[in-house]
Amino acid sequence: MTGETVILAYSGGLDTSCILKWLLDQQYEVICVLADVGQKEDFVAAEKKALKIGAKKVIVADVKQSFVEDYIWPAIQMGLVYEERYLLGTSLARPCISVALMEAARQCGAKYLAHGATGKGNDQVRFELCAYALKPDLQIIAPWRDVEFCRRFQGRQDLIAYAQEHGIEVSAKPATPWSTDANIMHISYESGVLEDPNTVAPGNLYEMTVDPLTKAPRDPVCVVIGFDHGLPTSVEDLAGSRVYTKPLEMLQFLNELGGSYGIGRIDIVENRYVGMKSRGVYETPGGTILYAAHQDLEVFALDREVLRTKQVLRDRMADYVYNGFWFSPEAIYARRCIEMAQQRVSGQVTMELAPGYCRAIARKASKDGGALYNEQLVSMDVHGGYVPQDAGGFIAINAVRIREHVRAFGPYEVPKRAK
Amino acid sequence: MTGETVILAYSGGLDTSCILKWLLDQQYEVICVLADVGQKEDFVAAEKKALKIGAKKVIVADVKQSFVEDYIWPAIQMGLVYEERYLLGTSLARPCISVALMEAARQCGAKYLAHGATGKGNDQVRFELCAYALKPDLQIIAPWRDVEFCRRFQGRQDLIAYAQEHGIEVSAKPATPWSTDANIMHISYESGVLEDPNTVAPGNLYEMTVDPLTKAPRDPVCVVIGFDHGLPTSVEDLAGSRVYTKPLEMLQFLNELGGSYGIGRIDIVENRYVGMKSRGVYETPGGTILYAAHQDLEVFALDREVLRTKQVLRDRMADYVYNGFWFSPEAIYARRCIEMAQQRVSGQVTMELAPGYCRAIARKASKDGGALYNEQLVSMDVHGGYVPQDAGGFIAINAVRIREHVRAFGPYEVPKRAK
Amino acid sequence: MTGETVILAYSGGLDTSCILKWLLDQQYEVICVLADVGQKEDFVAAEKKALKIGAKKVIVADVKQSFVEDYIWPAIQMGLVYEERYLLGTSLARPCISVALMEAARQCGAKYLAHGATGKGNDQVRFELCAYALKPDLQIIAPWRDVEFCRRFQGRQDLIAYAQEHGIEVSAKPATPWSTDANIMHISYESGVLEDPNTVAPGNLYEMTVDPLTKAPRDPVCVVIGFDHGLPTSVEDLAGSRVYTKPLEMLQFLNELGGSYGIGRIDIVENRYVGMKSRGVYETPGGTILYAAHQDLEVFALDREVLRTKQVLRDRMADYVYNGFWFSPEAIYARRCIEMAQQRVSGQVTMELAPGYCRAIARKASKDGGALYNEQLVSMDVHGGYVPQDAGGFIAINAVRIREHVRAFGPYEVPKRAK
Amino acid sequence: MTGETVILAYSGGLDTSCILKWLLDQQYEVICVLADVGQKEDFVAAEKKALKIGAKKVIVADVKQSFVEDYIWPAIQMGLVYEERYLLGTSLARPCISVALMEAARQCGAKYLAHGATGKGNDQVRFELCAYALKPDLQIIAPWRDVEFCRRFQGRQDLIAYAQEHGIEVSAKPATPWSTDANIMHISYESGVLEDPNTVAPGNLYEMTVDPLTKAPRDPVCVVIGFDHGLPTSVEDLAGSRVYTKPLEMLQFLNELGGSYGIGRIDIVENRYVGMKSRGVYETPGGTILYAAHQDLEVFALDREVLRTKQVLRDRMADYVYNGFWFSPEAIYARRCIEMAQQRVSGQVTMELAPGYCRAIARKASKDGGALYNEQLVSMDVHGGYVPQDAGGFIAINAVRIREHVRAFGPYEVPKRAK
Repeated sequence: MTGETVILAYSGGLDTSCILKWLLDQQYEVICVLADVGQKEDFVAAEKKALKIGAKKVIVADVKQSFVEDYIWPAIQMGLVYEERYLLGTSLARPCISVALMEAARQCGAKYLAHGATGKGNDQVRFELCAYALKPDLQIIAPWRDVEFCRRFQGRQDLIAYAQEHGIEVSAKPATPWSTDANIMHISYESGVLEDPNTVAPGNLYEMTVDPLTKAPRDPVCVVIGFDHGLPTSVEDLAGSRVYTKPLEMLQFLNELGGSYGIGRIDIVENRYVGMKSRGVYETPGGTILYAAHQDLEVFALDREVLRTKQVLRDRMADYVYNGFWFSPEAIYARRCIEMAQQRVSGQVTMELAPGYCRAIARKASKDGGALYNEQLVSMDVHGGYVPQDAGGFIAINAVRIREHVRAFGPYEVPKRAK
Repeated sequence: MTGETVILAYSGGLDTSCILKWLLDQQYEVICVLADVGQKEDFVAAEKKALKIGAKKVIVADVKQSFVEDYIWPAIQMGLVYEERYLLGTSLARPCISVALMEAARQCGAKYLAHGATGKGNDQVRFELCAYALKPDLQIIAPWRDVEFCRRFQGRQDLIAYAQEHGIEVSAKPATPWSTDANIMHISYESGVLEDPNTVAPGNLYEMTVDPLTKAPRDPVCVVIGFDHGLPTSVEDLAGSRVYTKPLEMLQFLNELGGSYGIGRIDIVENRYVGMKSRGVYETPGGTILYAAHQDLEVFALDREVLRTKQVLRDRMADYVYNGFWFSPEAIYARRCIEMAQQRVSGQVTMELAPGYCRAIARKASKDGGALYNEQLVSMDVHGGYVPQDAGGFIAINAVRIREHVRAFGPYEVPKRAK
Repeated sequence: MTGETVILAYSGGLDTSCILKWLLDQQYEVICVLADVGQKEDFVAAEKKALKIGAKKVIVADVKQSFVEDYIWPAIQMGLVYEERYLLGTSLARPCISVALMEAARQCGAKYLAHGATGKGNDQVRFELCAYALKPDLQIIAPWRDVEFCRRFQGRQDLIAYAQEHGIEVSAKPATPWSTDANIMHISYESGVLEDPNTVAPGNLYEMTVDPLTKAPRDPVCVVIGFDHGLPTSVEDLAGSRVYTKPLEMLQFLNELGGSYGIGRIDIVENRYVGMKSRGVYETPGGTILYAAHQDLEVFALDREVLRTKQVLRDRMADYVYNGFWFSPEAIYARRCIEMAQQRVSGQVTMELAPGYCRAIARKASKDGGALYNEQLVSMDVHGGYVPQDAGGFIAINAVRIREHVRAFGPYEVPKRAK
Repeated sequence: MTGETVILAYSGGLDTSCILKWLLDQQYEVICVLADVGQKEDFVAAEKKALKIGAKKVIVADVKQSFVEDYIWPAIQMGLVYEERYLLGTSLARPCISVALMEAARQCGAKYLAHGATGKGNDQVRFELCAYALKPDLQIIAPWRDVEFCRRFQGRQDLIAYAQEHGIEVSAKPATPWSTDANIMHISYESGVLEDPNTVAPGNLYEMTVDPLTKAPRDPVCVVIGFDHGLPTSVEDLAGSRVYTKPLEMLQFLNELGGSYGIGRIDIVENRYVGMKSRGVYETPGGTILYAAHQDLEVFALDREVLRTKQVLRDRMADYVYNGFWFSPEAIYARRCIEMAQQRVSGQVTMELAPGYCRAIARKASKDGGALYNEQLVSMDVHGGYVPQDAGGFIAINAVRIREHVRAFGPYEVPKRAK
């Protein structure tokens, strides 16, 4: 491989630093790409470190704005949630980072892409499917699937020894007994002590959110979130009279505020695409608030049957994104369909933030005449064009099948306990 | 109608008391049925009141046990939730009450069933579809859809005047500016001041739950909930060392404990079956805890693809139940299918209850060897029979379609903002 | 109702002629609208007849072109089929006719719409839902649901007597013992002798198609059908070297040719929206050929997973259309989504027409480089960028869940008969 | 590998004969298993040939009965069809054959399984997923994915040369320019000249069916097919007064009769699980007749909404089976659910067989009172408990959403062409 250029998705941590050295050992020229998706990282130090190890070049790509506007915002608009709980913070970052990696590969004429994702996880799939989609000629190097590499590095100790041997700086800070993935949307925690799903996660694990019961303000606060076509367009802090309208700032503000209330923590077991179950702990303060607000407005704004169809598409899309298929024919199609359903999802939702949770407490459509909610129609005191007598026929015709079933197959079974 | 017997679903309140009198005016013999589904009602007083107005007979049917075991428990087992938020507390009570009404009709040889549900709501549909299913020969009297009745009683004042005129006791307590439906699972609030979806619901509305921020204990508490085949079988209060194993007691305990933490409040706009949108506020303390615990265990216990199929069935079933089709061919079928998926959902979940919310924090399967969660397989430190190298092929083959799309239609569009 | 104007959906037959007279008796001014959707009808005679009975005006609306281009073509594009067999010939005509009726109502300032659809069928739903959608202020008169009308006309004999009494011409031709609905897409037959689902339909019933076994040519013929974005754009008759490119002409040509081969007959029991099952016999020669051709091209052209999602939408749309919801939020949404999937469905299909059936025998995409079918990739003799070794990993990872199931719950049950 | 035992899925053809020899070269002990699933093969000759090449043992497993009763019958019962056209003849045979292979592996204590499926096809996936499911410890040898093997055998000529070199008999019959897979359910043809999807398949390709236009009887014939719980239980030949009740005989009879009419040919492009599209020609005479008969009875017998849910499950199951997941948690689950829906699918269907096609022409339920089809209810001449007036209310309430859409968003767009 003498002289071949490889793009390495570099994090500055122990794993990818060792991988960098290992690639150099094999005569690759290595260009390190650090994608800044909002993780708290000393990018300058990481760059220095990589160069010291021997990287030919280090590219720090600030993709935060793209991450928020092109991935997180659409996810909120689509209402994406995996297995009904996980808001896909890591899954969404992967295609965004991949675009930066591909861009670097193109600029540098690299033929190879190396990443530090493990061979059991979802991220390898996400990175590589994105690479196949965006630059099909790129070849993948996945050291954690390389037999030789795996033999050499059987655990963290081997990595530390290798690092020390080669003068690679090892963080003085002892490693946490779990692994972490952080970005502007969320932090996820898994592995290590979390692998036993019946052990409660350590309380000191959370970084984006405070403990809601001991560290959060006792008084709730309200924010009003505006949406246009299902996309968040404004966040108004009623307390401080501030209004945010830039996506990145909106998310940062909601992360801080939500984080200060300890909002958005979940502890789940999820189904990985590679077929196993894993336990993860997530904190997604701003995303949790936005998701709940959007959901409230969507049911408020959409026709019932359009909503039903949209949710079927949404469930499929959530799986596509989790599984790594952001750039795929099916995801592009589903996304366009869902966006079409969001044309009417415009208005604002008042969210109450309280220690540990948030909830919608009021909402309105953006134009008075434009919404499907019809106070006159639903009111008990007004007819609003509705003829109650019609309901009798509605029920009777709906009962035809139900009665036919009895005629054909006998009475429905009834719980015997009832008296 | 001289002498024809009608069963009246009687609540003791103003509406059904007037309906009772109105039916008597029309020469019906009226048998009042009060179903005790756990609402806080003075059944003795209500019975007296009905008899005084002129009911031929009053039947108080305590169906709480059936309600919990035959309706709420299956709903938890199936994971039913309407439009992703409403736990169906009222929808589930309707078929249970209907069984009691039908039983009374059978015993008394009644040909008519009268109810006080409005002509714009879901409950008329639920009661009547159940009646058509269980006693197809029964004829429905729905005064609120009767042109004559509606002309006479155009508002609450007309009812009060009529009551006073006929010596029907009117509660001294002023009516709340909203309507309420209560049972052992939940209390729902709608209409009146709640009809404006952008007005925050009054804080004094809630009856089952305290204000989480001012009235709840500050310290969280943990309960361990056991499930067998997806049905809750035990609740263990870790604080007090109590264990409940009877469904009714389990629910009562969780309602009290959850209520004391202010858990399970939602404020939503939902889509009614009769085509309009309505705003409802619900509090479902015990149900919320049970739902979350079951969901946690289910994803933990079920194969990923079985879960996917089950959720499709679940979404359909939730609509069936909300729309009033509990006794229908499709609901019976969907329920049996979902139950079949629950064979593996056995184990226990540790739930943390905190002011205003609850969440799963640990879980285990009932038999050590029986669960699909495989700590060895998922561990980063063990191979567990998994060959990481296989993942490369897995990804590459999954990429075939993705690459073909590029070959045929050109590159995927990439957000331009990314650098 | 003195002087109120009513639009009557008039057919020229006995039923709507009597309804016309009956409306006149009730002092309505009646404007008859005959929509020409391609049925074989003497419109001049029908007009005369209506005027003679007393219609104030008769509007003959030739909507054939709209029917083909705005309803049938989209249905082919979407691949609509109800319960997997019925191509929706009548369901599609209803909204098209309704548009003509509404147009007439608007022009004439009519407040009422009357139709001759029965109270047990789907057509009443279709006509009225369209009317509610397009002209919500219009009031519906459905004589076959009018208690008075139904009492008077309990059977065909009553209609004939009434007609004779009022000088309404009754066709000398004896009525067929079934009812018929015809248009340019199909003819449907139901009722009468067809009501027994176990009685074979009379052989002399069919009007659009000859008996394939005794009257069709013995030699097959091929036509090449071109599609663009899923819409048929050309039909080439290989035998006669004719090419048709106008939708109406394409359909007429295929009806004639397909009819001469006896193509497109089905005999089914279907589920009506009003809850009952009915038996219908249909002949849809051109539609059957177009449907099969489109289906062939679609699977050929679409990505597998896009196809899966599109079919889910298609199944929903077919129900919407059958049930009368052509003009509804959900149908508009589903249709737009499906159209979006058809962007790639361009190319041509060679169809073999033979006595009683047709089938696709060859197909190609419209642009050489544009299609997803990849001869090189699939060929056994070429690698085409595909690395067979990857398949091993693909299978192994797919097997993870399957093996985990065995680990957790024991071996799969195997048929004992196998040796 | 000296002395290790490998089970080879042997066909007697050139490929697996060369693989047998190649395995022997590598010091394996090879046990050949020929599964008789109804293909026309000289099993005695094949056995001799394998032994002559050097197989340690040859097992001929007659699994025809199991294939029909445990795989084809359930597929008919479930209504399985892939991408709406392919009846899964090959997909269903794979798990059946796999059971025989695993049985042999168990008996012989083999640690390896070798098969001759290519690296681009579905069959490798099916065989291997079944093996992983049934005998997870078995190791797979897939020569067509072996780099070394593929280098050596780059085309058919290399195989022939190798065969001749090693005294392996090569059929004097020239190879067809396509490949074939045959069993009692169907014969499939693909590859070679069929790879161009726009080239018409050669007329002499078909083996199970005659040319319907030149070789079939001109007169149609009727058969009556009985079903119980959705499973075929009898076939009555009305012409010859024969009745078949054993599954294997029923299928053989329908294959012969259907084959003599040229029924069940399709020419399609399908989506393979490994991501590519392939063109296949299939003939499935008996299966086509059974599928159509079952479909007719099912829509006749099932409640509309149960049918809808069942079809969703069916579509998933068809994909599972096609993709090789017969033995998987999701397929077991879906199958049980679908079986449950078939409890009511009992009765008989009269099928007309004609040259090139068949169709249902009459049907009845097994018990007079048991079916949902209600002649009285649907009849235009009888009320049957149905109150037509109810339909007005049914429609009006269904229109609420439709009208609300207009109120909120303005009128529906109407085709402008219509007049």
